[in-house]
Amino acid sequence: MLVLVSMTDYQPSQQLLQKTDTFPATCPNCASILFSAMSKVFQSLSLFGILIGAVGITTSALADEGMWLFNAPPLQRLKEKYQFDPSPQWLEHLQKASVRFNSGGSGSFVSPNGLVITNHHVGADTLQKMGSAEHNYLRDGFYAKTQAEEIKSTDLELNVLMSIEDVTARVTGAVKPGMKSDQASAARNAAIAAIEKESKDKTGLRSDVVTLYQGGAYHLYRYKRYDDVRLVFAPEQQMAFFGGDPDNFEYPRYDLDICLFRVYENGQPAKIEHFLRFNPNGPNDRELIFVSGSPGKTDRQLTLDEMTDMRDRYLPYVLNMFYRREVLESAYSERSFENARKAREDLFGDQNNRKRYDGYLAGLLDPQIWSTLEARERKLRDAIAHDSKFKSALSAYDRIKRAQAEIVKNAPVYNYLEQERPVTVGYRAPRAFAGNLFKYARVLLRAADERTKPNGERLPTFRDSARESLELELFSDEPIYDDYEILRLTDSLTDFTSAFGPDNPVVKKVLAGKSPHARAVELVSGTKLKDAAVRKDLYGKDAAALQSAHDPMIDLARMIDAQARQARKTYSAQDEIKKQAYADIAKARFSVEGASSYPDATFTLRLSYGTVRGYEQDGEQIPAFTDFAGLYQRVAEHDNRPPFDLPKRWLDKKSNLNLATKYDFVSDADIIGGNSGSPVVNKANEFVGIIFDGNIQSLAADCVYTDTQARAVSVDSAAIIEALRKVYDAQPLVDELTGAR
Amino acid sequence: MLVLVSMTDYQPSQQLLQKTDTFPATCPNCASILFSAMSKVFQSLSLFGILIGAVGITTSALADEGMWLFNAPPLQRLKEKYQFDPSPQWLEHLQKASVRFNSGGSGSFVSPNGLVITNHHVGADTLQKMGSAEHNYLRDGFYAKTQAEEIKSTDLELNVLMSIEDVTARVTGAVKPGMKSDQASAARNAAIAAIEKESKDKTGLRSDVVTLYQGGAYHLYRYKRYDDVRLVFAPEQQMAFFGGDPDNFEYPRYDLDICLFRVYENGQPAKIEHFLRFNPNGPNDRELIFVSGSPGKTDRQLTLDEMTDMRDRYLPYVLNMFYRREVLESAYSERSFENARKAREDLFGDQNNRKRYDGYLAGLLDPQIWSTLEARERKLRDAIAHDSKFKSALSAYDRIKRAQAEIVKNAPVYNYLEQERPVTVGYRAPRAFAGNLFKYARVLLRAADERTKPNGERLPTFRDSARESLELELFSDEPIYDDYEILRLTDSLTDFTSAFGPDNPVVKKVLAGKSPHARAVELVSGTKLKDAAVRKDLYGKDAAALQSAHDPMIDLARMIDAQARQARKTYSAQDEIKKQAYADIAKARFSVEGASSYPDATFTLRLSYGTVRGYEQDGEQIPAFTDFAGLYQRVAEHDNRPPFDLPKRWLDKKSNLNLATKYDFVSDADIIGGNSGSPVVNKANEFVGIIFDGNIQSLAADCVYTDTQARAVSVDSAAIIEALRKVYDAQPLVDELTGAR
Repeated sequence: MLVLVSMTDYQPSQQLLQKTDTFPATCPNCASILFSAMSKVFQSLSLFGILIGAVGITTSALADEGMWLFNAPPLQRLKEKYQFDPSPQWLEHLQKASVRFNSGGSGSFVSPNGLVITNHHVGADTLQKMGSAEHNYLRDGFYAKTQAEEIKSTDLELNVLMSIEDVTARVTGAVKPGMKSDQASAARNAAIAAIEKESKDKTGLRSDVVTLYQGGAYHLYRYKRYDDVRLVFAPEQQMAFFGGDPDNFEYPRYDLDICLFRVYENGQPAKIEHFLRFNPNGPNDRELIFVSGSPGKTDRQLTLDEMTDMRDRYLPYVLNMFYRREVLESAYSERSFENARKAREDLFGDQNNRKRYDGYLAGLLDPQIWSTLEARERKLRDAIAHDSKFKSALSAYDRIKRAQAEIVKNAPVYNYLEQERPVTVGYRAPRAFAGNLFKYARVLLRAADERTKPNGERLPTFRDSARESLELELFSDEPIYDDYEILRLTDSLTDFTSAFGPDNPVVKKVLAGKSPHARAVELVSGTKLKDAAVRKDLYGKDAAALQSAHDPMIDLARMIDAQARQARKTYSAQDEIKKQAYADIAKARFSVEGASSYPDATFTLRLSYGTVRGYEQDGEQIPAFTDFAGLYQRVAEHDNRPPFDLPKRWLDKKSNLNLATKYDFVSDADIIGGNSGSPVVNKANEFVGIIFDGNIQSLAADCVYTDTQARAVSVDSAAIIEALRKVYDAQPLVDELTGAR
Repeated sequence: MLVLVSMTDYQPSQQLLQKTDTFPATCPNCASILFSAMSKVFQSLSLFGILIGAVGITTSALADEGMWLFNAPPLQRLKEKYQFDPSPQWLEHLQKASVRFNSGGSGSFVSPNGLVITNHHVGADTLQKMGSAEHNYLRDGFYAKTQAEEIKSTDLELNVLMSIEDVTARVTGAVKPGMKSDQASAARNAAIAAIEKESKDKTGLRSDVVTLYQGGAYHLYRYKRYDDVRLVFAPEQQMAFFGGDPDNFEYPRYDLDICLFRVYENGQPAKIEHFLRFNPNGPNDRELIFVSGSPGKTDRQLTLDEMTDMRDRYLPYVLNMFYRREVLESAYSERSFENARKAREDLFGDQNNRKRYDGYLAGLLDPQIWSTLEARERKLRDAIAHDSKFKSALSAYDRIKRAQAEIVKNAPVYNYLEQERPVTVGYRAPRAFAGNLFKYARVLLRAADERTKPNGERLPTFRDSARESLELELFSDEPIYDDYEILRLTDSLTDFTSAFGPDNPVVKKVLAGKSPHARAVELVSGTKLKDAAVRKDLYGKDAAALQSAHDPMIDLARMIDAQARQARKTYSAQDEIKKQAYADIAKARFSVEGASSYPDATFTLRLSYGTVRGYEQDGEQIPAFTDFAGLYQRVAEHDNRPPFDLPKRWLDKKSNLNLATKYDFVSDADIIGGNSGSPVVNKANEFVGIIFDGNIQSLAADCVYTDTQARAVSVDSAAIIEALRKVYDAQPLVDELTGAR
């Protein structure tokens, strides 16, 4: 399955922006407006100049590459290759029918009554949290026959993109010449906070400033926010993730990776204007399709120096972390069914990350891919070198290299004490303190401190604009399991001790003279933060009151807070240097390559397109589609044993099914983690499928698009209807989807 | 399960010795002969001075600590605590009934017709190698109803210790004052090789020089060698390893971890004089028992500096390696049943190592254990400091520290190119080149080179005395699976590339411009070494002929051989410095502590003793015994799902069984990896059980013995008889064991 991204990963931090005229993405002539807006910043802009193969490798002449902004869609390319010319209304409809999940994925409205479809693995975190020892919704699935039976989720937030405003001029103008990097960063932060607040106050919409082109452009995105989200339908996890880790990122595939929610407003199903009509037949082979979703993060415009660090330091670092966690969670899971239930989501997530980063590393170690990256940069640098007005862009490469070297030096303390990965912000525990309890402790501690500062100077997580999301997370009634918390904390404390040595002063302070296990037992047993009511109570308190509460987990968070914040400060300062340097490069790139390129993914809404088509692998032709017959065949090959086993009803109801029904399919649309749950639509803007994975060859998509073998994997809309009707007896749901009622 | 050790791990390398009078361990007055022999080396020897609690922590006044030499048994302790006084004949009988498996474990003769019992997990490697896609002996078990049905194993070597000779004087005399460490090492190597050869030529017995007390004493061990070993009985792996990784190193436990072989001579079952009579009733609670086996390696006499390196560098290093492999092998195994069969032994081995080293690290991070280690060293160093004749011992600590620092500096190249762990010698692939094929390639390459040298100057693996073992390994017809070899080699090449960086010259040379995967495919597809006949043929060739064979795997081994050998040389030189320093400390220790202590484990025969008894854990009393009723209860709790599932016949035959039959039991005998399969005997020298594991609390036993909770886990002889008779219908085998026929 695609990697989910946490909303907090992409909170618009450390950016600044300048309010300009509203610039709705859905305006009739948005492309030309974009032209005019961007030309203020970038000289020599040639919006429709096509750059073929600039990013791709071994792609066809006009490859289906790109994660395009909705306010700069690839109209020319679509016209040229597919003779298709989507209208502004077509684009607005798809944009507003698309939904972003704060748990890290994508989805879409599929009925006028607030029905939202996404992947099971996007909903899984919620299913897990809703579950208990008695009700294992994650494993057993769920179906609410009536609206009254729909279950409210504990902490889901859904966002629908309502408008995009270009604020680049204000942002780039906020950094004055001669400012040091920390001054620039502070100025930028303050400006961003102010503008988000202004927008929120004015429109009532969630307002995020998004950095595009690594700092080449800044757009303000406004979202309608839904937080009353109820579970309608989920299949058994076995069906959604049939084949488990072995089949993950593989194709052919046989997964029903879907989950249906309904958004409510004022206690009633929300009335939705823009929803996708459900086509019960799926797409055809070789058909043009579109994907609308929020790809999380790509690295296609990183410098070669940064890619080198990615390949040689960062990926091995995260892989070791995921290996370690996977082993810990597997071993724990095998001890009992209940353990397996408790750890299931973490385990799947870590396995998924491991496989995904493993594939990414394999891509970067492929000399062919690497030399493509080298050639790409060489071409750009050569062009820059020949134009004296891009002098600053030339030095930008060195500035990035030096800044990254500082980030690397700072990385151990940053990763273990502040956050385990650079992109993660906010709620995730740093590597030394795994589990939910430390995470809560830190939020409480920092909320008390940050509240006393002006909004613009706070850490992004604690700004007024993020308050609702923060509280949703903090007050979640997700169950906490002492044994599992102790297990994870013991392991991460051990890992921390090994990384820094038991004689390191911070390690000694943290362990307080105890073994990692004894310390974890003490902390987990002693803290009161397992109770959401206690967290709610403490959240209101100031720093002094918090201190006098003497909660051991908060005390631990306080103990290391100075070091952790210092590491963050160091990181942010260097990151700011990189931002400015990337902005310089971006300007040069626009000039050299033309502006027809799309920005790296930022977990904001993008439009991809492509063709439904199979591929060749080891001399064998892999067809685009699988079907139900193939599913049952695969089950038989594995004696119906996990992870290739079927729930009983799928065995019982086999004869009901039309086994020729198409199940999953592949296309060459350009996607990445975060696109999970993205609707696949046809030219008629009808829902024909749902993205849930990429194949193994697609895992280098972080840095390069290819279409020889790399494919996006979707569930076919035909399979969804067939399964709902004939296996799950969910005719009312089918009727709602197909508009029969 | 206890960690197995490879025979090659403990090949007596880099040691020297001096031939003295033959000193059979089984002579009637061996203790006093030992006294006289050792007193030549160590002044102030006080053999029977009891040192209570010198090594142990929180042990009872006279703890059942120690892995005692058969030529220096703890007679006084046994007399004092248990009023038991084993005769020399008693000791000789147990010694000669004990068997060492070259696959890394222990065992014993249990019939006059060559029947040998060991653990299933000791035999597992052999069961795996015997298996095929059609016959999965490892999974399904095996029983030869007649001798004709017994299957010859592919490469098992069994050793029975026939005599021990103290050669310390010759060894310590061989290093002349003023020799540099590499000279000393070479002189020592040459002397060892000569003495082993002399002994082999004279007696025809396998002759190994063993370093005891980290260089404080050298003994020549002579073994009768059996290499026609046939499989008689194995239960299903499910039964032997019931509970799998989750229950591994845990208690209570329900495992039938046994395997029976028969040794043949000249095509007939060997006639065995010293075998253990099988007591069908097992031991009683609180009974005195003895364990005779070959504990692999302990670190109880390492300096605190070395223990610090163990805790802070080495254990995290190996744990990361095992995490990585466990994930790789698990993911591969889950793809199909056949994959699972192929990888099963590697996976179990890596999981076992991971759990074991994890427990060891947890022990070292326990401040109570660590301060015990500190106190132990401080006491010894203080005593040494007050006696001027131990001046050299005082400086020894610094010499060890400096030498270890050099070993650490050399470790990356040594581990990745020469051998993955310092103690491993010979046949195991280094970390960069996982799998069987590189291992064979290196043996062939080095055999050709080493053969041209005088015997005494060769690497230990290639000495005349080791030739039979080497060829047994090299000509093994263990099946090789291309896909699995490619998987492992791809991963280890990736790991190597990440560790050294893709621009490292050796990495570039090794990868030859390809990705790790492409290179692994090329090497595995191209090599002819999968065929044992090819290996046999190439083994006869000289270096030039080998070169002109142009086998890609041998070419790879040649390509990195100079670097690898240099790393070995550096390691050996520093190891020699450590040896000399430890010898100095050992002399002082004898003087200060008395010689009643036992040497660290060296995978040579040792005698342990103890009491069958339960323990308290988290306020709960864990009884010493489990029974069959408990097994079925545990199965029910887990719905008979893996790894808590039973083979069908165990479900069918439940009603046959006396469910009150004792199954597994714990004792406080002092054991460690390598003791797997050791017989447990009572005062009458009867077989009452078989060691197969330690509990989780025993995992710090590497560095410290404790008896509060740490326990050795055994299968009860009563369970063996009950299962063979009533589940496996193996009455003839029962009759042979109980002497009924």
